Amino acid sequence: MEKEFGQLNPEYRILLGPGPVETSPRVLRAISSNMLGHLDPQFLEIMNETMDLLRYVFQTENQLTIPMSGTGSAGMETVMVNLIEPGDRVVVCVKGVFGQRLRDIAGRCGAEVISVEAPWGKPIQPEQVRDALESAGGAKLVAIVHAETSTGVLQPLEEISKIAKEYDALLVVDAVTSLGGVELKVDEWGIDACYSGTQKALSCPPGLSPVTLNDKARKVLGNRTTKVQSWYLDLTMIQNYWGKERFYHHTAPINMVYGLREALMIVREEGLEARYARHKLNSNALIKGIEAMGLQMIAPEGYRLPTLNAVKAPDGVDEAKARKFLLEKYGIEIGGGLGDFKGKAWRIGLMGESSRRNYVILLLAALGDALIQQGYKANVGSSIEAALEVYNK
Amino acid sequence: MEKEFGQLNPEYRILLGPGPVETSPRVLRAISSNMLGHLDPQFLEIMNETMDLLRYVFQTENQLTIPMSGTGSAGMETVMVNLIEPGDRVVVCVKGVFGQRLRDIAGRCGAEVISVEAPWGKPIQPEQVRDALESAGGAKLVAIVHAETSTGVLQPLEEISKIAKEYDALLVVDAVTSLGGVELKVDEWGIDACYSGTQKALSCPPGLSPVTLNDKARKVLGNRTTKVQSWYLDLTMIQNYWGKERFYHHTAPINMVYGLREALMIVREEGLEARYARHKLNSNALIKGIEAMGLQMIAPEGYRLPTLNAVKAPDGVDEAKARKFLLEKYGIEIGGGLGDFKGKAWRIGLMGESSRRNYVILLLAALGDALIQQGYKANVGSSIEAALEVYNK
Repeated sequence: MEKEFGQLNPEYRILLGPGPVETSPRVLRAISSNMLGHLDPQFLEIMNETMDLLRYVFQTENQLTIPMSGTGSAGMETVMVNLIEPGDRVVVCVKGVFGQRLRDIAGRCGAEVISVEAPWGKPIQPEQVRDALESAGGAKLVAIVHAETSTGVLQPLEEISKIAKEYDALLVVDAVTSLGGVELKVDEWGIDACYSGTQKALSCPPGLSPVTLNDKARKVLGNRTTKVQSWYLDLTMIQNYWGKERFYHHTAPINMVYGLREALMIVREEGLEARYARHKLNSNALIKGIEAMGLQMIAPEGYRLPTLNAVKAPDGVDEAKARKFLLEKYGIEIGGGLGDFKGKAWRIGLMGESSRRNYVILLLAALGDALIQQGYKANVGSSIEAALEVYNK
Repeated sequence: MEKEFGQLNPEYRILLGPGPVETSPRVLRAISSNMLGHLDPQFLEIMNETMDLLRYVFQTENQLTIPMSGTGSAGMETVMVNLIEPGDRVVVCVKGVFGQRLRDIAGRCGAEVISVEAPWGKPIQPEQVRDALESAGGAKLVAIVHAETSTGVLQPLEEISKIAKEYDALLVVDAVTSLGGVELKVDEWGIDACYSGTQKALSCPPGLSPVTLNDKARKVLGNRTTKVQSWYLDLTMIQNYWGKERFYHHTAPINMVYGLREALMIVREEGLEARYARHKLNSNALIKGIEAMGLQMIAPEGYRLPTLNAVKAPDGVDEAKARKFLLEKYGIEIGGGLGDFKGKAWRIGLMGESSRRNYVILLLAALGDALIQQGYKANVGSSIEAALEVYNK
């Protein structure tokens, strides 16, 4: 093997895509702390603290609130494989890529899957869930994405939670792009199982997936008659490692847990309400700027996700070329469209450390520049003024 | 939430357990590098380099050689769920905890599992594998652990590989505790699929699991008639992210990949042969010291794993109490027995950065001290002399 490998030296990026987003230097320092064994009493205490902090951001008292050893999709799979047994009837709400993924996983679990669909860019209506449950004669669970990263839609949950309860179905919520950036009240909203990722509004490197299950969901887990199809994600065993027993299951990703604990401390220092307000403010400024530039948001007003802002790419503009320009000339990363929106949208993440006034202003100027390069008459000056107006209100 | 959380400040440990082991400061610096997007051209290059370096340590030309986004057990599950379809007949060799885990996972995949067993602390005999394949009329695959972390046994593989080929069965090898510390030649030995972990002889933090599949194994994957039961670990999709297509699947754990690349560069700078020799030397010195102290190794000579040295706890000695003493008085972590050896053994890892002369000498003195505390007449002086003799030969 003759090839030479240089020093790792990643050029600095402003990360305004769908994640990972920027990480505090405090978190980067934490993950580079010296290693501990995964059963070391010191590490066990760090685990306890991490669980406490996770309960705070999930707004839950759930005992089983832990980071799974994988990225967000591992959290999705964890909840599904643990709660579903072959033949179970489940309702999956699909309005974007991550709803599709939920449906795919439910199918791999051997479930009888009933899809409830909304057009991409729109939320699911509660009555659709009721109709599906009514005509199916109930279901074991209803799974829905709170913050659809592929469309920028924020899905209201409270009404759907009540309907799920009427039919005695568990409510499973994907909070990958909402946890820590958008209001989410697991206990108050009656969410039975919820999962997220670390590299979004928690501003931590990717690699862990926080999950929380309430006692009702744990009871379903306890009553299984078949083994969970994944050994790696089997909560019946993993809860004994994170619980009092400290029973060895697999080696926890020590340094990632260090990082998560630090990232969660930062969330707690800012406070959830202040953090939600910051995300909302920066998103509002971006939206006003985007609209003043002559562009359109994908999600309708009232259903826009502050953490992930999906913008229509105007006709005649090559969205990938614009992203390349942003990366090369400004060092800014934004996301392209996924699925139905491939080639037709930009996805601008304003999450955690990346949700900043400076970046909103800079991005509006840079995106305007990218559009002008392609001959689109972007009104950059009005765009910046509109954003400033939001901040100075 | 009123509880106060202090600065993360883990006390320094000498990590001589079954892993995680110590990590080079270079690796810790690498993982704290600034974040990149998971589709950033810079990160794609880092992925390419990491795959190249993994091919070097696996001693393979396999195109599909990637780190899965989970710890070692996720690698085990990856290989099994991708290669097995419900109803497939598979032979699983069981001689410790990790063979049991393989069998458990094979069962969860719906396989018809044929166990080949050896007593804990002994290797599997090639003829046992032949007999199993012969009486079953062949099997889709034979799965075996190269380095059984629960017993310290190094399993010879070349003969078993030939037998698997005679019966046209794939050979699946668990190299979690051997990769980078013990000779392992994936291509030359005819291993069709192999997986490992990062926190053992590669001396990287836990969180990734390198896997490699040859074209024969990939063909089996391509010929599946059912979906892989795990979405998160589905190689048919993941290979399109790590391959030329760069197709989004899940967000790779960016910083862990930084760390793995750096850890692999360190392995390459030392060179595999020199690295194997270092592991062997330190293990030999430890073994001589252990025996001179009056203790016994679990694995028979010729089958001892240099990376993981399993030692019988003498009658009348409380092994857990001895470990607690080592941790509290010396800051040294060693492992206890697992499964059949629970309460009866110590497992001493000398892997990667933890495989050092200084630690061998210190551990022998400290373990002797721990034994003397419990009234066992450990011959500490002879033990140290025996170890020095190995180094000075």
